[in-house]
Amino acid sequence: MHCNEEKGQKFIKDIEQKKFLFSFVISYTETCEIPGITVAGADADFIKFTPPADAEFLHYGSCKSIDMIPMTPDGKPTPALLTKAALESASIPQVIINAGSKISPKLPYFHTGVTYGKNIAIEPGLEQSNVVHAIDYGRILGRTLASCTDCLIIGESIPAGTTTALAVLKSLGIDAHVSSSMPKNPKSLKNGVVEKALERSDSKEPYDVIANAGDPMIPFVAGMLSTASEITNVILAGGTQMAAVLAIAKSTGYDENRVAIGTTSYIIDDKDANLLDMVKSISDIPVLSINPKLEDSKFDGLRAYSKGFVKEGVGAGGSMIASILKTGIDSKKLLKLIDKEYSRVTTSQ
Amino acid sequence: MHCNEEKGQKFIKDIEQKKFLFSFVISYTETCEIPGITVAGADADFIKFTPPADAEFLHYGSCKSIDMIPMTPDGKPTPALLTKAALESASIPQVIINAGSKISPKLPYFHTGVTYGKNIAIEPGLEQSNVVHAIDYGRILGRTLASCTDCLIIGESIPAGTTTALAVLKSLGIDAHVSSSMPKNPKSLKNGVVEKALERSDSKEPYDVIANAGDPMIPFVAGMLSTASEITNVILAGGTQMAAVLAIAKSTGYDENRVAIGTTSYIIDDKDANLLDMVKSISDIPVLSINPKLEDSKFDGLRAYSKGFVKEGVGAGGSMIASILKTGIDSKKLLKLIDKEYSRVTTSQ
Repeated sequence: MHCNEEKGQKFIKDIEQKKFLFSFVISYTETCEIPGITVAGADADFIKFTPPADAEFLHYGSCKSIDMIPMTPDGKPTPALLTKAALESASIPQVIINAGSKISPKLPYFHTGVTYGKNIAIEPGLEQSNVVHAIDYGRILGRTLASCTDCLIIGESIPAGTTTALAVLKSLGIDAHVSSSMPKNPKSLKNGVVEKALERSDSKEPYDVIANAGDPMIPFVAGMLSTASEITNVILAGGTQMAAVLAIAKSTGYDENRVAIGTTSYIIDDKDANLLDMVKSISDIPVLSINPKLEDSKFDGLRAYSKGFVKEGVGAGGSMIASILKTGIDSKKLLKLIDKEYSRVTTSQ
Repeated sequence: MHCNEEKGQKFIKDIEQKKFLFSFVISYTETCEIPGITVAGADADFIKFTPPADAEFLHYGSCKSIDMIPMTPDGKPTPALLTKAALESASIPQVIINAGSKISPKLPYFHTGVTYGKNIAIEPGLEQSNVVHAIDYGRILGRTLASCTDCLIIGESIPAGTTTALAVLKSLGIDAHVSSSMPKNPKSLKNGVVEKALERSDSKEPYDVIANAGDPMIPFVAGMLSTASEITNVILAGGTQMAAVLAIAKSTGYDENRVAIGTTSYIIDDKDANLLDMVKSISDIPVLSINPKLEDSKFDGLRAYSKGFVKEGVGAGGSMIASILKTGIDSKKLLKLIDKEYSRVTTSQ
């Protein structure tokens, strides 16, 4: 528990043993095509398949758009594996939202008509009309989904999303340093991209900022948050990206008393990043974190998480927190389920 | 209450004052392009816009794909008006599912990849692969939606859907006579279409029957029913079409103890149709009906319902039943809300 602890205690009390719904927002920014900026996906051609493949893995336990589950080139699995184990352990239902993914997943998903984002190093990320559309449709879906649950978890998958999040936060004047899915964060590369985006515009108006430096996920989830938090509790499941959502949601409006960020301890402990300081400077909401103790896993690919690889994504942290709050399972048992899932996946493929 | 009354009482007791979720399945069959077969939509070019326009009306209170709300040529409004008033009265959330609509609605909806149906008078309604796909995706969505509620209401909008339903029921050897949105049911026209479909194939195998004589809505909702009824209570909101769903769902499997058909008294009282006999011959489930007493409405367009026009659609009957069961509102108060909605719609356009 971090930041506003009092609110955090109240938030936890409100949702313990209640109903949860996991919504998974998949999206895309061409910013991820800059060589070296992300390891989400085994190689450059594969990156665009990562968000739909994550969605398919959550649904089916295997992928349809690609032959294997998303892994780093040396075999570290997608955080969707943690998410799936967590959601299953607590029988938490899930819906997939396509908010600008370049590839559509092969399953029933919410269609939103949101277009994928451009490479912010060379041009504005989104057209203004796409920003407005994303917020509008996010607001509609946030209202619908929030009406069906006691706690809406929102997770995301957008390759290079930390870079666009960083650009949005910096554009808004927030002192931001971000995490990465790689232990050697390609900071100078990311900062170079962000600088190029910042040079194009000095507007601090939120819609301008998203259009110039953002990606489709940020306005969509900000819209969802604004209506959903009026109706129910919301866990923004992620790190830096959710800080950017929060910063933009200031202008769409949301209920600070019904929102928490839920993430992994790997993000909180990341010395390169400053999630807690960022959140504090944006909003007075609690940040919940879970240490899944992956260093105790039987498998190299999972132990790597505790050494700074991957860290978070696909709403893994928030899902694991929800599982523990709903069922009372301890993190040791959860790790057993995660190991079991890893074993299933690596032996069946 | 009709058919199995004991099960009906238990069903009602299980869902009174509970949480409901309305799912609205929009679809299309080219069968509706046969002149005179339906009045769903003001004219032939408009028919394909009726399902998405109904969905938009439920969401926004106005339509985006067309300039006005769906009406018969002489101004009788879509049953979506009853549905909307009912859902709002009880704060029942709704999701839109596009299972083969020719036109996509302008709102966030579940994309399923199901293709629209062909005119069964001249060719098979669906390819076998589309039937399998519709059932598979229906099963996935049924599971997801059922996990979010105590009672899943399933409504539909598919122009000429009673004709394809009739063809499916007759192909399965069920003695079927169906309702129509017109007081002078174009029975000979419908029967002629059905005969042409039946001449093409004499297989009674359910998948063959849907492929030859059906539409995409029927297998999709049958799939939804099969998984949803394993998890929660399901109201099949409609008349003849839901009888066809039930007949097909025999092969997908479903829990008879958690399903009821919910419809209007106009369907039950329709002397041209035999819904109750059909249901009895298919399955031992209860049929719930509501008389919305539209003859007491202030408006001609709504009073027409009690004279045999429109009768049902867009899950109107099931939604009104759900409103009453959730909130305890009486049908007089519900009529007031329906009149108010009619007044709003006709004065704002």
